[in-house]
Amino acid sequence: MERTLINQISTQEGKTAQIKGRVFNIRNLGNIVFLVIQDYTGTIQTVFEKGIEIKIGDFVVLEGKVKKDERAKGGYEIQGEKIEIVSSVIEELPFDLAKNDLNLNLVTLLDNRTLALRHPKVQAIFRLYDILLKSYETALRENNFIEIKTPKLLGAATEGGANFFKVKYFEKEATLAQSPQLYKQIMVGVFERVFEIGSVFRAEPHFTTRHVNEYIGLDAEMGFIKDYKDVTKTLNQVIKKMFEIIEKEGKEYLKEYCIDSLQVPDEIPHIKLSELKKIIKEEYNYEIPKDTDIDPKGEELAGQYAKEKFNSDFLFITHYPWEYRPFYTMINSENPEETLGFDLLYKGLEIATGGQRIHSYNELITNMKKKKIKPNGLEFYLNTFKYAIPPHGGWGMGSERIIKQLLNLSSIKEAILFPRDVKRLCP
Amino acid sequence: MERTLINQISTQEGKTAQIKGRVFNIRNLGNIVFLVIQDYTGTIQTVFEKGIEIKIGDFVVLEGKVKKDERAKGGYEIQGEKIEIVSSVIEELPFDLAKNDLNLNLVTLLDNRTLALRHPKVQAIFRLYDILLKSYETALRENNFIEIKTPKLLGAATEGGANFFKVKYFEKEATLAQSPQLYKQIMVGVFERVFEIGSVFRAEPHFTTRHVNEYIGLDAEMGFIKDYKDVTKTLNQVIKKMFEIIEKEGKEYLKEYCIDSLQVPDEIPHIKLSELKKIIKEEYNYEIPKDTDIDPKGEELAGQYAKEKFNSDFLFITHYPWEYRPFYTMINSENPEETLGFDLLYKGLEIATGGQRIHSYNELITNMKKKKIKPNGLEFYLNTFKYAIPPHGGWGMGSERIIKQLLNLSSIKEAILFPRDVKRLCP
Repeated sequence: MERTLINQISTQEGKTAQIKGRVFNIRNLGNIVFLVIQDYTGTIQTVFEKGIEIKIGDFVVLEGKVKKDERAKGGYEIQGEKIEIVSSVIEELPFDLAKNDLNLNLVTLLDNRTLALRHPKVQAIFRLYDILLKSYETALRENNFIEIKTPKLLGAATEGGANFFKVKYFEKEATLAQSPQLYKQIMVGVFERVFEIGSVFRAEPHFTTRHVNEYIGLDAEMGFIKDYKDVTKTLNQVIKKMFEIIEKEGKEYLKEYCIDSLQVPDEIPHIKLSELKKIIKEEYNYEIPKDTDIDPKGEELAGQYAKEKFNSDFLFITHYPWEYRPFYTMINSENPEETLGFDLLYKGLEIATGGQRIHSYNELITNMKKKKIKPNGLEFYLNTFKYAIPPHGGWGMGSERIIKQLLNLSSIKEAILFPRDVKRLCP
Repeated sequence: MERTLINQISTQEGKTAQIKGRVFNIRNLGNIVFLVIQDYTGTIQTVFEKGIEIKIGDFVVLEGKVKKDERAKGGYEIQGEKIEIVSSVIEELPFDLAKNDLNLNLVTLLDNRTLALRHPKVQAIFRLYDILLKSYETALRENNFIEIKTPKLLGAATEGGANFFKVKYFEKEATLAQSPQLYKQIMVGVFERVFEIGSVFRAEPHFTTRHVNEYIGLDAEMGFIKDYKDVTKTLNQVIKKMFEIIEKEGKEYLKEYCIDSLQVPDEIPHIKLSELKKIIKEEYNYEIPKDTDIDPKGEELAGQYAKEKFNSDFLFITHYPWEYRPFYTMINSENPEETLGFDLLYKGLEIATGGQRIHSYNELITNMKKKKIKPNGLEFYLNTFKYAIPPHGGWGMGSERIIKQLLNLSSIKEAILFPRDVKRLCP
């Protein structure tokens, strides 16, 4: 007998169907047993008019007659005839997966990750994450970007900064890629438009609700741009397309978080960082500390301002100061203390960083000298510019931060199957 | 003026069009200059009836009248009017990118990777690789698999064996994931069908044409299987779908390698390893060494046999011996010295490894003891089985090996943008 998926059960009305799934809940009245069975498409109630030996969590294959039942969730019930346990629980579940909300604190949630993931509300996060990955690929491919995979084991730390994990690599030392930045720039000289979905490793000792030490970056880089605004425009279109797909294909999972619709402006507002600082001071009487470009509190208020002033969840902050941006960032010709680098905020949290890059070899060398970065190990990158690369720019986006903000999760770690932080390497 | 992509130039016949691209070749007759311009969709010849200062490799934006010309490649030529160099070559190219074949040895090719990638025949490899990634996603999603991303930084070596890279992880030591094996199995208990496209790290000191130390794995795992044949059947369908998409969308890139069509049997032949060994001895008088399951020479002959006997480029070898398969592989109940593990060969090279897995907690523990594997650090994995996981299996496939075999490349390193081997960490 062929299996019927639970969300297709209406096609078998009046017939005997086979379903496969996990026992999600049991009501045992002795000689009548109600089982809720869950497969990856939904749940259905099955009634057995005889005693059966079964436990919550068992995986079963069962057969029974499909009956219409207005009272049942989904509109159908199965009159159970045969049941076979194909994999059996041998230890009692530590929490009740049938509750509407697990209500675990973050540490308990993550310590019991392999089991907590069986809860529908937790699963919904990763159903949406799957759709997010797909939507990014779709949006980029529609815009003629091709997917590349760049190495994560590097011979040299690539972007300055000390936040690299070190790897013992045979007789040498390698570092783990902090981003595909330099490689994707090189590839603009080859394919003009490239994107990558890949692992990113950051040895930052942060312990916050928005940082992890390993995540999936959504990168892109494009050539023949006029200026950074070609990049923000493309990123705007990409986000809009992604959210359209997520809203359409993720409806039932968004509902678990009481979200009906997703809005992305056709033109996300742009504000220069220097102006934004004045606005935040004037509107919210908050002074961004002098030793940073913008702090989390500042980003939060910027998000609030974008919502109040433009009714937008998104905001591009542009023209970050030269001292806070990496050596490859294009300098603003009208004000060399500023770059053509930007951040994209979503509900007051940075979800993407990008900008125009320097494409002239000589400018790159000059800027590296100013930043006191040695070219050691970066020759392959620098030399490529001698053979010309068109004017270009791009972005790096944090996939899990989008989900965190979308669902208003309290920590980014909820949006990662098996998150890594300073203390957590397991599960 | 809006840019026209070169493969769309026919839409502008008789009009003035703007194109952007790299100068691919120059014929300079003094007061008449022929330029071949290349963008990411193709090449076109442009004629300027005046002297211009330009070098091969420069990136330009140019305008001119589009004229039909039967003699021209693509059927059109541009009568150049305006040209602007937006990024200029400052060092002469070390080799001629306009030649039909670069003909570089592997080391020179890889040392000059950032430039060699600008050659159309090298580019074709990565155009096909992009289509391959997309085709895998498409095939898996069509079969109800959802995409997951599992951690690459692990607290414990997961599968036995010593081939792990070690990472200094704050105060601890981490290892780099050698596969998503244990995590994807856990996720079968959650989503039933999952796949992952992700980085895989192998600290193997091999120096062959088919090994690298970092690659992109195409993994999948599925629940509620009857036996390993459900897995080989699904993998067969997936490969068939992938090759259909690659043939259709990659036509012009396959042509660079003189490939017209791709064939995948509806039913890839299956042979038990023990039988195959006898056949190889009988047919080719070759004895597979005693200290291995099968050696590369044996795989090559197996591939030859599959071609001769079944006219198939693909072959499933099944029932690998217990001693050569990891602890999670299901044991053949009819012969405990064999497992229900298989390999998939493509033109005599292993491109995928898979099998049915053990889903009973007690069997897992017993098998680990027999294999002398300590459970330290694997508790999260083992405990999950106490809460039941359905019968399941899956595969891990090497994305770059498929491309190597597809195009008959001499080394897998040609199929990786920036490959990593024992000695190579750069570029």
